[in-house]
Amino acid sequence: MLTSFFNPGSVAVIGASRSPGKVGYDVVKNLLDGGYERPIYPVNPKADEVLGVRCYASVLDVEGPVELAVVAIPAKHVLDALRECARKGTRSVVVISAGFKESGEEGAERERRLAEECRREGIRCIGPNCLGVMSPVTRLNASFGAAMPRPGNIAFFSQSGALGTAILDIAVGEDIGLSRFISYGNKADVDETDLIEALGEDDETDVILGYVESIDDGRKFMDVTARVTRVKPVVIFKSGRTRAGAKAASSHTGSLAGSDSAYSAAFKQCGVFRAETVEEFFDFARAFACRKLPRDNRVAIVTNAGGPGIVATDAVEASLLEMATLSDRTRQTLAQHLPAHANLQNPVDVIGDARADRYRRAIEAVVADEGVSAVLTILTPQTSTEVDRTAEAVADAAAATDKPILTSFMGSASVQDAWDILDRRSVPNFEQPDRAVGAIEAMVVYSRWRRAQQAEPPRYDFDADAIRRTIEGAAARGHKTLAEREARQIAAACGIALPAGTFAPDEDAAVAAAAEIGYPVAVKISSDDILHKSDAGGVKVGLKDEGSVRQAFRDVMSSARAYKEDARLDGVLVQQMAPKGREVIVGVNRDPQFGPVIMFGLGGVYVEVLKDVTFRVAPVTLEEAQAMIGEIRTARILGAFRGEPAADVDALAECVTRVSQLALDFPELSECDLNPLRVYPEGQGVMAVDVRFGLA
Amino acid sequence: MLTSFFNPGSVAVIGASRSPGKVGYDVVKNLLDGGYERPIYPVNPKADEVLGVRCYASVLDVEGPVELAVVAIPAKHVLDALRECARKGTRSVVVISAGFKESGEEGAERERRLAEECRREGIRCIGPNCLGVMSPVTRLNASFGAAMPRPGNIAFFSQSGALGTAILDIAVGEDIGLSRFISYGNKADVDETDLIEALGEDDETDVILGYVESIDDGRKFMDVTARVTRVKPVVIFKSGRTRAGAKAASSHTGSLAGSDSAYSAAFKQCGVFRAETVEEFFDFARAFACRKLPRDNRVAIVTNAGGPGIVATDAVEASLLEMATLSDRTRQTLAQHLPAHANLQNPVDVIGDARADRYRRAIEAVVADEGVSAVLTILTPQTSTEVDRTAEAVADAAAATDKPILTSFMGSASVQDAWDILDRRSVPNFEQPDRAVGAIEAMVVYSRWRRAQQAEPPRYDFDADAIRRTIEGAAARGHKTLAEREARQIAAACGIALPAGTFAPDEDAAVAAAAEIGYPVAVKISSDDILHKSDAGGVKVGLKDEGSVRQAFRDVMSSARAYKEDARLDGVLVQQMAPKGREVIVGVNRDPQFGPVIMFGLGGVYVEVLKDVTFRVAPVTLEEAQAMIGEIRTARILGAFRGEPAADVDALAECVTRVSQLALDFPELSECDLNPLRVYPEGQGVMAVDVRFGLA
Repeated sequence: MLTSFFNPGSVAVIGASRSPGKVGYDVVKNLLDGGYERPIYPVNPKADEVLGVRCYASVLDVEGPVELAVVAIPAKHVLDALRECARKGTRSVVVISAGFKESGEEGAERERRLAEECRREGIRCIGPNCLGVMSPVTRLNASFGAAMPRPGNIAFFSQSGALGTAILDIAVGEDIGLSRFISYGNKADVDETDLIEALGEDDETDVILGYVESIDDGRKFMDVTARVTRVKPVVIFKSGRTRAGAKAASSHTGSLAGSDSAYSAAFKQCGVFRAETVEEFFDFARAFACRKLPRDNRVAIVTNAGGPGIVATDAVEASLLEMATLSDRTRQTLAQHLPAHANLQNPVDVIGDARADRYRRAIEAVVADEGVSAVLTILTPQTSTEVDRTAEAVADAAAATDKPILTSFMGSASVQDAWDILDRRSVPNFEQPDRAVGAIEAMVVYSRWRRAQQAEPPRYDFDADAIRRTIEGAAARGHKTLAEREARQIAAACGIALPAGTFAPDEDAAVAAAAEIGYPVAVKISSDDILHKSDAGGVKVGLKDEGSVRQAFRDVMSSARAYKEDARLDGVLVQQMAPKGREVIVGVNRDPQFGPVIMFGLGGVYVEVLKDVTFRVAPVTLEEAQAMIGEIRTARILGAFRGEPAADVDALAECVTRVSQLALDFPELSECDLNPLRVYPEGQGVMAVDVRFGLA
Repeated sequence: MLTSFFNPGSVAVIGASRSPGKVGYDVVKNLLDGGYERPIYPVNPKADEVLGVRCYASVLDVEGPVELAVVAIPAKHVLDALRECARKGTRSVVVISAGFKESGEEGAERERRLAEECRREGIRCIGPNCLGVMSPVTRLNASFGAAMPRPGNIAFFSQSGALGTAILDIAVGEDIGLSRFISYGNKADVDETDLIEALGEDDETDVILGYVESIDDGRKFMDVTARVTRVKPVVIFKSGRTRAGAKAASSHTGSLAGSDSAYSAAFKQCGVFRAETVEEFFDFARAFACRKLPRDNRVAIVTNAGGPGIVATDAVEASLLEMATLSDRTRQTLAQHLPAHANLQNPVDVIGDARADRYRRAIEAVVADEGVSAVLTILTPQTSTEVDRTAEAVADAAAATDKPILTSFMGSASVQDAWDILDRRSVPNFEQPDRAVGAIEAMVVYSRWRRAQQAEPPRYDFDADAIRRTIEGAAARGHKTLAEREARQIAAACGIALPAGTFAPDEDAAVAAAAEIGYPVAVKISSDDILHKSDAGGVKVGLKDEGSVRQAFRDVMSSARAYKEDARLDGVLVQQMAPKGREVIVGVNRDPQFGPVIMFGLGGVYVEVLKDVTFRVAPVTLEEAQAMIGEIRTARILGAFRGEPAADVDALAECVTRVSQLALDFPELSECDLNPLRVYPEGQGVMAVDVRFGLA
């Protein structure tokens, strides 16, 4: 898929130009300079040749087939050019031209027609408003970007052309090899999901990087990406994290970005690494490009400098990694090869005067240790340090093991050659040891993701008819929020535990209901015309005997009447007082790109202050629900804690997945909140004290 | 102070060598290559000349005075050399030689004698076990490090020689100018505090950077540094943040690092920036080296690329900075100079085809806006971008304003020349826009620090005699923890509010006391032999009437008797039940380097789970106490919140400062905990429900 973009049998450049500085000139020049070895056809009715290559008046004049066309003509002529491509049988087109969605309503209309034409003709189109594509491994530079990076195994796509330019420049400057580069601009046809799918199948690509400002079809993105990340890592840098950032993004791309928490949740669920900075982007890429993954999270550090060793140790401790404990045997081996006052514990200090050979032996010793999953080698260029020879020694050791060995050769001029050696020999090197540690952490996370079983969300047997009837009834009355009675019906129909409750039209019925439920009880006014019962004085709680229930019935009826004279009062709901328990919140919001997003957090005053909540896109598996429960900052409160037994986390996870299924099955429910949901000790389940639903 | 190290009238190298690769050779060569223009005297009894310079058998043979001596001979001869220096009248010595504290007990003893000799002779000594010193501004390279960076206004000192080497190499490679570089190794005499003081007075230095693994005299460090940071910024990279990191640090330097939270608190209190990574270290240095500070926190961004603009906007929003709102006038000016579809809001997008002139006009427009405190200019090297000319334009604009203008020229090869231009013209440039934003944030924080009034801690009138008597009494009995009675005496003597309480030796007295205090009350066993009253069944709370008090008296006496047969039971404490309120904790720990450290946090289960606490080194001013209260994550709970009025934060701050004074005045109290301390609504004060003190 999309191979015609990277390895076409021939390339036409529609809008080829003889004027340096014009895009149509740069594209032809880049194709020629790149050294692509298949036919290149400049197309321009006003020229006979461009840069010494014969030029055609139309793509239809080219004798042989045209597999890929690059279009660099004014926007208003692009559609005609596309039609000619269709007639020519060209099925892959890159539209570099600007003047589409990014430039106002007229351009947006032009883009819609372009997309439609592509669909009709079965043409795959990259762009418009982009830099083009590069494929360093096939020496194809079909872009107006400047230099092409060296061939490598990292693919990079960018929604922003300008950021693409900057990153290409960095790749060239830092000698980072790329397999493919795709600037996909306004994504009228080919979008990030198509690219991830294609690059997932691309043998030349081991790591996929993308800069993304918006994703339109969240569901499709997640389905495709979750499959690809089982095979190769995907790192995405998604800007627009904050409110102001999202605003800037939408004024820039004209696209609605959706909520950032939905993106973060979706990325987590389909195994995507979210880079928070451009640096992390490269760091992760560099680490993954070495194609090794640690089996576990235990890191050994070998250093010729105490200070950076401490810095790295700090970084390990602050991450989910652990400092490996070296075995006695390893320490004995180290003792044979290191000076008397060297540190044989981890971090292993080979001392400032270590030459390459001492490094080699120390690395060999720790890498052989069963308890070590990855090795970080730190070097500072001291007087007797053999910088380049040490780089070779590290690379030799790396070639002889399947454990990842990473380096931080610190400095600049003195270590430049060593960096090149490490790069060429696929040893990921980082200027700072803390960044190397961050990269190892990413490798461990990815390694765990790859080994984890893919689970299916559970499927519960809801009383769907009851739910549908309730929703339709409320919708018919034009309500935006379901009445408590209705909310209870829906919760019950999907198996969410509620306090027992009985409707009572009069005082005697209320007393009978209370006796049936068992004291203490609460009494709440029942009226479709009163949504905020507490405001109306319509709620009495903690009623311990018959007398209190009678009094409460009279009180809530008269308060409700006083609150809203013309309200229809049906009677009261007599309800069990839910036993005390740890309080959490489970909720649902709908995201325009990703659909229902499930929220989980600790209840009470702290949710509001700490925002200690986490999100997943529905459907949520039981494993994901467990992960949500475990990843909030206050998670410990749900464990065995301060004399209390552990909370019933299994029942809680099940409840989260029930809410997830409800949200997916009934898109009419725009919002849902179980708040508070009480969680009881293990085996004793959960109970939703209050349930609210909104209607779309 | 210490000027002899940077600008000496003459330099002797004791241990000068003719063998390349020896330290004594490198030092002489570096001095000669650096181009220092004053006399250099190699000293070595076995050579007539070193590198063409006349060599002396002893420093005593040098005809003229020797202002600075660099010692690079085996450790066992260093003391003799130092004595000769003393006889020669040399008062500044750099000891490069290793073989001291870092190499075991014999070395440590050698170092003690070295330090003693320095004190006796009035010699200031840098080292031992260091790289030496450099002063690029005077062309002095008295080190065995390699290349000397170009002259600049940043001073850098490093406890770790190896990290120093790496950072020098980076400074050379990235063309960062230094005023001075000091590797101070084992700091037998001159330590980080001396260096900060000296560099604070150094006219060549505008920014002070230090890499530190331990600080020995925390108090002195804070006093000196708080003065220096009023004049110039101090950035410290302190490793050993985590437990494992601190362990690695102590095995590396042989020094006890102290608790990291004490360091963080101390740095905050004396205006030091703590860099968390090597990168931040340089980022802050680069930003401060431009010698401008923003007056406020409002940032304008000018960019030729939407994507990086969004990235920067995200970073601004996530920091304490704000995106500036541009005035109508500014937007009108921008409209005149920018293309029709450019974004005139902040971030200002000058569009991908912007040349230098358009950048210049856009920057001039936003910098003139009253609502803009700092400008970040972002550039990606696109086809028509005039990279170098834009750098000049930015530098021109920066030269014409006192608002800081920073840049992020993204890329590598294509922007390298522009980076040089920006460097030379003192425009701080950052490879990534998010790092530039971090640097602006640091500038804002520092600007606020500089403008803040320095406050004195309050001084309260404690009943010191009562406190002393209580402590002595407890110490005489050999107690490690004060009895409740004693703790209450001390708290009362220093004005900390407690629940009312009366000692009652018998049942009738208990009833009388309860009537006096007012119901409900608590009854607690009073016995110096029982420390854990609750465990002994010695506490009854919520007693509402006389009968309950009588019953409680009998119960606690018999339980206590059963718990500990031979305990002397004095009777009970009858105590007021403290009214409900928001609960916090105030505590004191003693740090070996910094003395008493005051802790503040929210009480209850969340302290334990969230570790939502903050620290300051005593003495704490009222302003610092207020800052502590405001900076915990759950601070909002103390404000007006969910219908509750705001808590009495002033009374709380006062209580914190009372505890701080108590901890300083009575070092015998090793620990102190007010837990819980209840905070009541504004004007209603605080009350310590439980008070505990430990004895040293």
